[in-house]
Amino acid sequence: MSNTEIWLPSLITKTPQEGRALAITMARKTIGAIQTDPEKRKQMRPEYADDTAQLISSAQVVAIEFQTIAKANKYWRNEK
Amino acid sequence: MSNTEIWLPSLITKTPQEGRALAITMARKTIGAIQTDPEKRKQMRPEYADDTAQLISSAQVVAIEFQTIAKANKYWRNEK
Amino acid sequence: MSNTEIWLPSLITKTPQEGRALAITMARKTIGAIQTDPEKRKQMRPEYADDTAQLISSAQVVAIEFQTIAKANKYWRNEK
Amino acid sequence: MSNTEIWLPSLITKTPQEGRALAITMARKTIGAIQTDPEKRKQMRPEYADDTAQLISSAQVVAIEFQTIAKANKYWRNEK
Amino acid sequence: MSNTEIWLPSLITKTPQEGRALAITMARKTIGAIQTDPEKRKQMRPEYADDTAQLISSAQVVAIEFQTIAKANKYWRNEK
Amino acid sequence: MSNTEIWLPSLITKTPQEGRALAITMARKTIGAIQTDPEKRKQMRPEYADDTAQLISSAQVVAIEFQTIAKANKYWRNEK
Repeated sequence: MSNTEIWLPSLITKTPQEGRALAITMARKTIGAIQTDPEKRKQMRPEYADDTAQLISSAQVVAIEFQTIAKANKYWRNEK
Repeated sequence: MSNTEIWLPSLITKTPQEGRALAITMARKTIGAIQTDPEKRKQMRPEYADDTAQLISSAQVVAIEFQTIAKANKYWRNEK
Repeated sequence: MSNTEIWLPSLITKTPQEGRALAITMARKTIGAIQTDPEKRKQMRPEYADDTAQLISSAQVVAIEFQTIAKANKYWRNEK
Repeated sequence: MSNTEIWLPSLITKTPQEGRALAITMARKTIGAIQTDPEKRKQMRPEYADDTAQLISSAQVVAIEFQTIAKANKYWRNEK
Repeated sequence: MSNTEIWLPSLITKTPQEGRALAITMARKTIGAIQTDPEKRKQMRPEYADDTAQLISSAQVVAIEFQTIAKANKYWRNEK
Repeated sequence: MSNTEIWLPSLITKTPQEGRALAITMARKTIGAIQTDPEKRKQMRPEYADDTAQLISSAQVVAIEFQTIAKANKYWRNEK
């Protein structure tokens, strides 16, 4: 992830499902900001994708990120 | 989970109990978005379903997702 | 837990202490929704009830569920 | 903890420090509701009190409980 | 930590950075309330200060405590 | 991190992406406040940067810090 790449212009998404996708992106970008070597990240993938405990921890990160995104989008309730 | 499937049109549910079910679905969909191989997910099931520590971690993910859903539904208090 | 059982008609409780009990129920119901075999759940009980790390993780789930319930009940402050 | 004991009549405390104490009590009561044998709880104490990882996890439970209590007390800002 | 010591008169701080320091103090006081022996706490320090997993868990406790403090201080936005 | 360094004058950032960067800084500063030896921190880096479970836990800390920052910035919705 080049430091100049604008990947998060806004927290606003059209739908909750797009909000879920953004939450996953946000979590992944944090991992990329800590482990900046894409090749290493690729090699490490099976360590978490095939490990239920780490899949559950990953789901927890996404749940927290989504909580923030849902609030930013006023829960997509389309209220004024 | 095909990428085009609309599974989360809204966070609004009729009852708290439906909100619980949606929270579990949201957590499961995240796992499916990370480990996209349904066969692998099926084989891994006993690893968490028979492991109390992972059952507890799973319950934590659901609690966070439900927190978001409950807020979106104004706690089903039926206030205007 | 039969799927048709209505166990969560509302998040509203009379007192904070009832809210604590509901939070524990909500956490337990999630475990039951993931590990649906009551006999297995019964056998697994010592694994977490006699393990301090898992007791602490369980307390964390209850704390998150209670946070949602307390908010739903406006912290039982009896304000209009 | 006898089931009839009223230990949480309210979330309101006079000061933040009393709020901290209540948060610790709430976390401990949850442990007591899951592991109901006081003798077992006493024997298990060194397992977490002498284990930094479990002390940190316990601090996390208290932080979440306190977050709820602080909100209930409007952060003791004494605003109307 | 003598039980009569008033260490948390308020959650209000002048700046976010003071809020961070208070969050760390609050987390440490919880550890002190559970493991009351200062000598033991001192001996245990390397166990977490030299262990990345426990440093990360500690950072999580501080992040939750800070979330509460930031809200109490209305995010230091100096709005009326 | 010298104790007199002002690194967190405010939680306000221009964009969500700057908010992400601040969240990572806040998490790192907490680690630095607990493990104050920069040389040790540098040596420990591979322990978490090459460990998927610790990368995921780190992402969780950042998600919680970002939740606070996003709220402080009113989700960058530019509403009055």
